[in-house]
Amino acid sequence: MQYAGGVDVGGTHTKIGLVARDGRILAQARLEPDPRGAFEELAATIAEGLRRLHREAGGRLSAIGIGNPGYTDRHTGLTVGGAFNVPCLHGNSLATWMGARFALPARADNDGTCAAAAELAWGAGRGRLNFLLITIGTGIGGGLVLDGRVMRGARGFAGEAGHFCVQPGGLECVCGARGCLEQYASAGAILRRYQDLRRRRGLTVDPGQPPAGVLAAAAGGEALALQAAGEAARAIAQLFGSAANLLNLDACIVGGGLSHSGDLLLRLVREAMPDYTLPLLAENLQILPAELRNDAGLLGAAALAWEVLAS
Amino acid sequence: MQYAGGVDVGGTHTKIGLVARDGRILAQARLEPDPRGAFEELAATIAEGLRRLHREAGGRLSAIGIGNPGYTDRHTGLTVGGAFNVPCLHGNSLATWMGARFALPARADNDGTCAAAAELAWGAGRGRLNFLLITIGTGIGGGLVLDGRVMRGARGFAGEAGHFCVQPGGLECVCGARGCLEQYASAGAILRRYQDLRRRRGLTVDPGQPPAGVLAAAAGGEALALQAAGEAARAIAQLFGSAANLLNLDACIVGGGLSHSGDLLLRLVREAMPDYTLPLLAENLQILPAELRNDAGLLGAAALAWEVLAS
Repeated sequence: MQYAGGVDVGGTHTKIGLVARDGRILAQARLEPDPRGAFEELAATIAEGLRRLHREAGGRLSAIGIGNPGYTDRHTGLTVGGAFNVPCLHGNSLATWMGARFALPARADNDGTCAAAAELAWGAGRGRLNFLLITIGTGIGGGLVLDGRVMRGARGFAGEAGHFCVQPGGLECVCGARGCLEQYASAGAILRRYQDLRRRRGLTVDPGQPPAGVLAAAAGGEALALQAAGEAARAIAQLFGSAANLLNLDACIVGGGLSHSGDLLLRLVREAMPDYTLPLLAENLQILPAELRNDAGLLGAAALAWEVLAS
Repeated sequence: MQYAGGVDVGGTHTKIGLVARDGRILAQARLEPDPRGAFEELAATIAEGLRRLHREAGGRLSAIGIGNPGYTDRHTGLTVGGAFNVPCLHGNSLATWMGARFALPARADNDGTCAAAAELAWGAGRGRLNFLLITIGTGIGGGLVLDGRVMRGARGFAGEAGHFCVQPGGLECVCGARGCLEQYASAGAILRRYQDLRRRRGLTVDPGQPPAGVLAAAAGGEALALQAAGEAARAIAQLFGSAANLLNLDACIVGGGLSHSGDLLLRLVREAMPDYTLPLLAENLQILPAELRNDAGLLGAAALAWEVLAS
C-alpha cells in the first residue's frame, strides 16, 4: 500500500504518521526531540521515527510532508523566521534534509497552510474551491485555498490571518503593529478580555481558567463571557467579511484548539458577518468549523505530501 | 495581423478598440449609447462600432473582451448587480451576445479585474506574480493577481477592495455597512474630508474643487489637505498591509483617476505600510502606481480577451 509520511513539528512534541491517499492514518507516533537542541538531532529523531513506522507498516512511503511553525520559503525550503518554539529550524530546511535522507519528494510548509490543505483534501473544505481557514489557539494562523489550489504567495508566507488589522491604532501586538486579530480573538486574548471585564467589576478571577471555559460560560449565558466571546467573534467576522469581499470565497473555516468548544463562537461570527460583507458576496458564503481535530496537524503535513505527489 | 477587441463599458460613454498582443492599440472609438436604454440597443451600438473598426483595420479579430461595472458571474456571464450607471446590463450577458454576433470567444468581467489583467500583461504588473490593484475614482475598485493568474473567486466577484472594512463601526457606506475603504479613500471621500476640515475651522470651501486639487494642495504643504490625504493613505495602507499579510504579495498597485495626481498619495501610503504589515511580508513588497492611464479601461477589456485566447 502507498502512503505519505506526515511530520507535524511543534514546540512541545512532534507527531509523525503514515497517511493514505484517503486520509486514513495507518500508523502514528509522538516524538519529543529537544526543540531548543541542534537541528541535526531534531531531524535525525524524526527520520528514525519515520523509518520505524515505515518498517512496521510495510507498504510504500512515497513522499514526506512537514508542517512547521513560522515562515518557510517556498523556493529555498528554508525556514526563515517565526518558529519561536522550535528555533533550531531557522536557517535550515527539514524538507531538504528528509528528502535527501529518504531519497523521496519532501516539502515543508507553515502549519496553517498545511491545515488548509488537509481540510481541502479530507475535511470541511472538500469540494470547495475558495476558502480561508484560520486556526485559533495560543496565536492565530491561517491558510488559503483559491480556485481549488492551496495558495502560498510570493515566498510562501501567505495565510498570516493573525496579524490582519481589525482595529487601526488598537491593542499592541507582539509583531510590533497595533490592532492585529490575534490580540482580539486568540484563545489568550479572549481569556484576557474576560478577566479584565471581571476585574473592573471587582469580581474574582480564576488564574487557572482555560480559554475554553470562557466560551462555556458564554454558552451558559454569563454576560461578561458573552461579551468577550462576542467581541472576538466580531473581529473574526471582520477578517472573514473583508477576505470574502476581496476574494469571493465559498467558505470561511475555523479550526484550532478553541474551535472544539461548541458552536457558540461560530454562531456569533455568523451573526456579525453582514456588518462586514457585501450582500452579494455573503450570499453563498458559509462559516464552518474545521472537521479535522486532534490529528489536524499530522493530516496537514500529510496533505502537503499528497499535494506534491499530485503536482 | 491578429488582434483582440476591447469594450470598456461606462456610464457616460463606451470605449472600443482593437488591441494587439503586445498592448498596442491599433484603432479605437468612443461610443455614446444610452446607458439607461435597452440592452439590445447598447449591444448593437457596440457591435456596429467594433465591426466598423475591424473593417477599417483589416486583419483578424480573434476574441472580444468586455470590461463593465458591477458583478458579472464567471459561470453564466450574466451581470447580476452593481452596474448602477449602466442598469441595462443587469440580467444580461454582453459576452454571450457579442460571442454569438461575432462567432468568437468573448468574455466580460468587472472593470477592476480587467485593470489588473491589463497591468499584468502590459503595465506595472509585468513580471510580477502576486499583486493587488486598486482603482481610485468616484468609487474604489480592485483586481487581484496571484501566482501569475488573474483571480476571480467563487462567482467572479473577487477584488471588491472598496468595501474592505478599515474602521469597524466607522462611516456609513452606500453598501449598508460601516467603515468601508471607499468612505475614506475614494476621490469623493478625500474631497469631503478636506472640505469638512476647512468648514470646522470657518474657512471657505470651493464647491467646484476637483479631488485632485486636494492632493495638489497637500503636495504644496497645505496642512488640512495633507491631513485629508494622509488619512486616506493610512486607510489604503491598512488594506494593502492586510492583503499582503494574507496573500504574501509582491506589489500593491494604485490606479484610477486619482493616481495620476503626482506621487504624494503613494509616498504617504508607503510611509504608513509598516503599521499594518508584518516585517517579513513587507520586505519585498512594492507600492507602485499603475502604468496604464487614459486607455486603462480599454486595455483592461482587451487583456481579458487575450487571457481567453491564451487559456
